[in-house]
Amino acid sequence: MRWEIVCFVGVLAIVLAEDNYLFETKYIDVPLDHFSFAQDTKFQLRYLINDTYHEDRGPIFFYTGNEGDIKNFAKNTGFMYDIAPTFSALLVFVEHRYYGESLPFGNQSYSSIDKLGYLSSQQALADFVYVIEALQEQYAHNQKNLPVIAFGGSYGGMLSSWIRMKYPSSVLGAIASSAPIWQLGGLTSCEIFNRITTSVYASFGTDKCTNGITNVWKTIRSFTKTAEGKANLTSTWNLCSPIKTDDDINQLIDWAAELIVNMAMVNYPYPTNFLADLPAYPVREFCNRLNSHKLNGDYDLLVAVVDGLGVYTNYTKTAKCNNINVTSPSLSDNGWNFQSCTDMIMPMCSQSSDMFENANWDFAEFSDTCYKQFKVRPRNLNVPLLEYGGKDIEAASNIVFSNGLLDPWSGGGVLRNINDRVRSIIIPDGAHHYDLRGKNDLDTEDVKYARNFHVRKIKEWLREYYSDPQVNLIKK
Amino acid sequence: MRWEIVCFVGVLAIVLAEDNYLFETKYIDVPLDHFSFAQDTKFQLRYLINDTYHEDRGPIFFYTGNEGDIKNFAKNTGFMYDIAPTFSALLVFVEHRYYGESLPFGNQSYSSIDKLGYLSSQQALADFVYVIEALQEQYAHNQKNLPVIAFGGSYGGMLSSWIRMKYPSSVLGAIASSAPIWQLGGLTSCEIFNRITTSVYASFGTDKCTNGITNVWKTIRSFTKTAEGKANLTSTWNLCSPIKTDDDINQLIDWAAELIVNMAMVNYPYPTNFLADLPAYPVREFCNRLNSHKLNGDYDLLVAVVDGLGVYTNYTKTAKCNNINVTSPSLSDNGWNFQSCTDMIMPMCSQSSDMFENANWDFAEFSDTCYKQFKVRPRNLNVPLLEYGGKDIEAASNIVFSNGLLDPWSGGGVLRNINDRVRSIIIPDGAHHYDLRGKNDLDTEDVKYARNFHVRKIKEWLREYYSDPQVNLIKK
Repeated sequence: MRWEIVCFVGVLAIVLAEDNYLFETKYIDVPLDHFSFAQDTKFQLRYLINDTYHEDRGPIFFYTGNEGDIKNFAKNTGFMYDIAPTFSALLVFVEHRYYGESLPFGNQSYSSIDKLGYLSSQQALADFVYVIEALQEQYAHNQKNLPVIAFGGSYGGMLSSWIRMKYPSSVLGAIASSAPIWQLGGLTSCEIFNRITTSVYASFGTDKCTNGITNVWKTIRSFTKTAEGKANLTSTWNLCSPIKTDDDINQLIDWAAELIVNMAMVNYPYPTNFLADLPAYPVREFCNRLNSHKLNGDYDLLVAVVDGLGVYTNYTKTAKCNNINVTSPSLSDNGWNFQSCTDMIMPMCSQSSDMFENANWDFAEFSDTCYKQFKVRPRNLNVPLLEYGGKDIEAASNIVFSNGLLDPWSGGGVLRNINDRVRSIIIPDGAHHYDLRGKNDLDTEDVKYARNFHVRKIKEWLREYYSDPQVNLIKK
Repeated sequence: MRWEIVCFVGVLAIVLAEDNYLFETKYIDVPLDHFSFAQDTKFQLRYLINDTYHEDRGPIFFYTGNEGDIKNFAKNTGFMYDIAPTFSALLVFVEHRYYGESLPFGNQSYSSIDKLGYLSSQQALADFVYVIEALQEQYAHNQKNLPVIAFGGSYGGMLSSWIRMKYPSSVLGAIASSAPIWQLGGLTSCEIFNRITTSVYASFGTDKCTNGITNVWKTIRSFTKTAEGKANLTSTWNLCSPIKTDDDINQLIDWAAELIVNMAMVNYPYPTNFLADLPAYPVREFCNRLNSHKLNGDYDLLVAVVDGLGVYTNYTKTAKCNNINVTSPSLSDNGWNFQSCTDMIMPMCSQSSDMFENANWDFAEFSDTCYKQFKVRPRNLNVPLLEYGGKDIEAASNIVFSNGLLDPWSGGGVLRNINDRVRSIIIPDGAHHYDLRGKNDLDTEDVKYARNFHVRKIKEWLREYYSDPQVNLIKK
């Protein structure tokens, strides 16, 4: 089932080797349940803080953590560091409950639904508000609260837009990068995600490349019908464990598809190691490799595709074999799968218009899978829409939604201005939350424009917030 | 402790004898916990519906139920019935969880914190959103959702303003009558409530009346120091049970003070039976009675005050004696006391500037009382402010806050315009959510003006919402 293998970049993030972005690690006790009083448990939420640039009444730049270790997001959100001096901003990155070290029940947090059940976006937003309150107590010095600007990419971007919508007194404005809030609950056609991925490969490769991917799935299935074929593919693809069953083959296909999707998401113009060690424009590199092969039959195609996948799996030439259970060294998508089953339901499917195996969106089947895995069923497709407004977000203000058109998630993003105060900015050549990354000599003009747009909007919001004498806190 | 005896009108409401306002009673299953997934319990929420006036694309007028039986609110919110024909509106009144018949665990709902803990304003708002969704499925006929206008008085008014703030895609606008959202968390000085009550008695009576009330408390205490005095007061005040202990005397004083407050709240210009059978302007009647006595000593004052209280306790001359455990036949303030301890914390106190016994607001003592009664402590005074924004509600839109200046709760109300779309309307001579009552020949010009203001605002919101051809749904 396709929905399972589609993960946000966040889930897959690995720790950057470089430590350009410094922070201090702190913890705060937050209530397990912000909305009921049936029990009074608290747990430790982790957050990262850097007050190097902060002066007196400067704003709080607040990253609303994703479904993963918050350190990875701090290290891959250099934009906040880049602009902090301009605003004399306090930098804070708050971990999302049930990820990283912020586990309410330690290593038992995922053990049963009565423990895992407090993983929800609403509870996470309330955690963030709780942290903001604590920061205000510490940094506002009993004066008017410091203005808070939320930042987030991907699911974190959804959260940053929602925290502004739901808690506007805590958060003045939000930069929501690559936030597919309209991927929820069937607001966007389920096939868009895979169709965009396909078009990214078409743009950076050729028809030969997308045709190769389109054909490889049935080639894998026919090639592995026999035990001999399975052994042959295991060897050709240098798999760590031999494929033996139909489940293994499904797993192999999911793994390869996810790598192909991931390369589209992080198709940045310079080498990165966010998901894996990757060259600039990994999609182009993948297609270059695939296209370099002559395709005279099934076997040739299999060789060509695994050569392409090597861009992702072994760019540093240190991997010994391909482990189809791992798409990123720190993969931990259990939490996100749970959220997909509960309040972040995002229907996904593949059709003949994309290069992936056909797969329908089947709510009943989806529900069964959720129940099997978590003993929970999605209550209703509409749940996230009722909570966050679906497409009707006219009442919101002070939000920038940015989307790269080369990002598969952009299909579920907000690609038009909602009103004067909820603006959309498009990065035509951008991948997944590219604009939140630190500046780079190879940055495109499109992303520079988007970042300038963000800065301009933040200045507007802050100018309104500050009384006149304080406006000069914005240095440039 | 004064906070305990201050109840919203809602808590005290009794069923109107008249049945001018018709409805059908329905039930809907709603999740016990909208924000977590630790358990999947549902329970039956009651709502009342009247579709007599509803046509095709007409709006839903949605009463966000208070801390009491929803039928009483339907019967005392005639304004919605009065204007429904103009708007072709569907009328819906939804009960608040844990009140009336909407008890998640039946008669065990209040038995322990693990059951009672799901009583919270946030859960109630989510219930309402859930009901709206069900109504849309039934009445919008797969077209664009019908516009929903929320109405509420007192705590119900707070909820109606908050449902617009938190769920603007579900609710287009809100008429929040006598909604003391700034009584929360210490945003308003704790003594304002009692000071306003005092000024109401000063306006409708004389200094003699307010001085009488001011003096009666210490008179009661000194008069009842002896057993003989206790017996004498029991007899003079025609109490159903003799007062014997200091606790009895505290109880007597709380009871008398609450009756005095209640008369200010429902000091309407015509006879009502919302809290009790009462004449027009019960405060004036109280003071007239008190003032008719010559006050030549303690005993005279006690006689005068109990004569005044008779306006409330025995206007129909059918009561046999005064029961100091009851301030209204259907009193059931357990739920509200719980909410006061958790998410609706409203500091209250009495000082020498008002006519009540002095009482400080003491958070520690308050917390102890909460723990004793419910095994729960208020988490933090700021909790409701973080959730609902406190005084910073600039980001909101399409809300009218109406307040009668003769209403003790108006001190915690929104008495100024917040922005172009969050408006305040003052009813100088109005008591507690007077404007939501059905029209009456004795209505004041002030309340008529407020009701017209509401209608004008609702029309503005609806005109924006409807596409042009549908505007004529608004008939006048």
